[in-house]
Amino acid sequence: MTLDIDRARLLQRLDDFARIGGTPAGGVNRQALSDEDRRSRRLLAELALARGFRVFQDPMANLFIHRKGRLAGRPPFVIGSHLDSQPTGGRFDGALGTLSAFEVIESIEDADLETDLPLEVVAWTNEEGSRFAPGTMGSMAFAARAIPETWSELLGTDGAPFRAELKATLDALPEAEMRLLGFPISGYLELHIEQGPALEQEKIPIGIVDGIQGTRWLDITVNGQAAHAGTTALSFRRDPMAAAVASLDTLFKSIMPQDERTRFTIGRFAVQPGSVNAIPGSVVFTVDLRHPEPSAIDALEMKIRNTCVAAAEVHGCEVTFRRLFDMPPATFSEGLLNCLGRAAARLDLPVKRMISGAFHDALFVNRVAPAAMIFVPCRDGLSHNEAEYVEPDDAITGARMLLASTLEAMREIASSKSN
Amino acid sequence: MTLDIDRARLLQRLDDFARIGGTPAGGVNRQALSDEDRRSRRLLAELALARGFRVFQDPMANLFIHRKGRLAGRPPFVIGSHLDSQPTGGRFDGALGTLSAFEVIESIEDADLETDLPLEVVAWTNEEGSRFAPGTMGSMAFAARAIPETWSELLGTDGAPFRAELKATLDALPEAEMRLLGFPISGYLELHIEQGPALEQEKIPIGIVDGIQGTRWLDITVNGQAAHAGTTALSFRRDPMAAAVASLDTLFKSIMPQDERTRFTIGRFAVQPGSVNAIPGSVVFTVDLRHPEPSAIDALEMKIRNTCVAAAEVHGCEVTFRRLFDMPPATFSEGLLNCLGRAAARLDLPVKRMISGAFHDALFVNRVAPAAMIFVPCRDGLSHNEAEYVEPDDAITGARMLLASTLEAMREIASSKSN
Repeated sequence: MTLDIDRARLLQRLDDFARIGGTPAGGVNRQALSDEDRRSRRLLAELALARGFRVFQDPMANLFIHRKGRLAGRPPFVIGSHLDSQPTGGRFDGALGTLSAFEVIESIEDADLETDLPLEVVAWTNEEGSRFAPGTMGSMAFAARAIPETWSELLGTDGAPFRAELKATLDALPEAEMRLLGFPISGYLELHIEQGPALEQEKIPIGIVDGIQGTRWLDITVNGQAAHAGTTALSFRRDPMAAAVASLDTLFKSIMPQDERTRFTIGRFAVQPGSVNAIPGSVVFTVDLRHPEPSAIDALEMKIRNTCVAAAEVHGCEVTFRRLFDMPPATFSEGLLNCLGRAAARLDLPVKRMISGAFHDALFVNRVAPAAMIFVPCRDGLSHNEAEYVEPDDAITGARMLLASTLEAMREIASSKSN
Repeated sequence: MTLDIDRARLLQRLDDFARIGGTPAGGVNRQALSDEDRRSRRLLAELALARGFRVFQDPMANLFIHRKGRLAGRPPFVIGSHLDSQPTGGRFDGALGTLSAFEVIESIEDADLETDLPLEVVAWTNEEGSRFAPGTMGSMAFAARAIPETWSELLGTDGAPFRAELKATLDALPEAEMRLLGFPISGYLELHIEQGPALEQEKIPIGIVDGIQGTRWLDITVNGQAAHAGTTALSFRRDPMAAAVASLDTLFKSIMPQDERTRFTIGRFAVQPGSVNAIPGSVVFTVDLRHPEPSAIDALEMKIRNTCVAAAEVHGCEVTFRRLFDMPPATFSEGLLNCLGRAAARLDLPVKRMISGAFHDALFVNRVAPAAMIFVPCRDGLSHNEAEYVEPDDAITGARMLLASTLEAMREIASSKSN
């Protein structure tokens, strides 16, 4: 049998999984460690067991499907993504990468192709982080070879205890063999939707992802003095709202226009006491700051701090800063990226080298093994949205690219290690 | 007995009433139509009945204490304020004006002074509007001679139905004679704390209030497109937050600096969806705009609309406006203001002519009879706050000014009407 992706099978699988937690609006609500998540894990495990693959899970409930290689002692090459979704998520975010990876392993099995390295499909636990924060828990613990102590007391947005939900998820799949967290792997590839508009706009079917930009989240509080809107003249005001909008307007007008690689977003903004007729006593907002270079993120944080402090002083206010989150940029394996380039050339596919604006499990896996990612276009760049959509042709092209890249990378790694 | 304010009695009364709904922090929680409000009304009514005054209430539970005049057929001259408070309010806002008015009527009674006009003390219902919105319900209905139909379905912040609480309040004072809403009155004076810092800063004991500035509340929504903070480049963003801060910074830097009589406040600001890593899809904020001249308020609203629309266009957003509230400026009676000036001169009190930044019941009473207000200083201009404080000397000076002004105004009105 010729080695190729089975178009009908993959599209059918995408439909089948989209029904697990499917929403009336055509999206998916399959949050991490929920019943829906467990049903999708069960379906994938049953499909794998039916094909004779071994199925494993580790203590974080990361799910692995194993296909033997000739060199049984070598660590497996791993492909995959995640199956959990946002509460009003789309059908493709995570599922496309996981099901394409399973399609790759099935296609190879269908063709009776022997590979030197073992090949595994992974579905990482809780990439989205919407029910239990943070996201990318599964790959984070995998890379750290430990589950952080602080997670043991976590509660979900629905009040469910993380520890109990993790245990119930593990218990729900007794067919899976248990495996240690963070076993050695020889490399990792992840196919994912772009979650941005660039590929669609430029009509390029494949993005080769060089790395993931760094992200820093700040929480900024400007404290002034609450006072009566009607009785308080300008000279008596210490208005944190006036200070906040002055600094933010300066930052919006300088940060992104000066460097197109920068992302600067104010996603939360709250006011106390929040009465129409009260000058606020304080305002609190978050900054999401991203850049591919760590030094640029440091410089931008300094600029943000200085701008906010200067505006606060003008208005008699005080400002405090807190880092909520700090994720350094990731640069993917040059060797793997070359494999992707050769695979695309062989398939005659136009590609765009790009940086991922979003986190992915590949970011953490990259810390313990060569990793890289493949992007496919999604309509209007829309994601984390029930209207998320990928053209069937683009999904199939992505899966073909994953298949070719996986074989290319496995050959390269098997031969380089044997030297 | 010499006609004068009884300092000890008034200060004691202020203490007595501050205990009704008194908070551990020294403030007052005596919200409209609550048990605490009813207890304070009962205490005032019992003090009045004990002195032989008649007590009335109207269907809005506005409470009146009547002292006869020689010209029994003439409408009474009315002095007073309100007894309800904010949930974490102060001891003086409303109570000082009501209890000073009662002190005035008692002092006149103590001195056996006959007046031509009948004199009444009023405690208006629900000035604050914190439990049941809007505020100044009692004086508003009095001036309109009707209770608006829309109030019948109102619920309080605690879920209590307005209609039931109003009835329970009326029923709790069976000693009070019922009276029609909006009976004729010959004039109205209200003593109140300034709720601003001007008198304290300028060390002037008495403010003669020319009027109340107009207030307009706007609700402004800027709609853009929610998108991923990491994956969405600047050219693809339609960021309502960027549009909102650009327009607000322009407005903060121009509106109040250009006209010191203007008040421009952004008291509420909300973001959807409100995730750290999501460009907002929409932001909604309120504007509280005040000015003594109606034409200036219209011009400012136009400026605000134009500025927001221009900034929204730059960011590919759309903006909608809604008026939440519109209260034209009030100009108090020139005749009454002259009486206040003469009374202050007789008492040798320095005064400052000023505009009130806050609403007061006098605003509505002014629509049906000559009205004016007297302000006294409060510490740091602080109000709607448990730390609200008035120096005893300032309270007594205010009550003396109210007494002298009341007698001056009653003489003036009685004689002018008889001509």
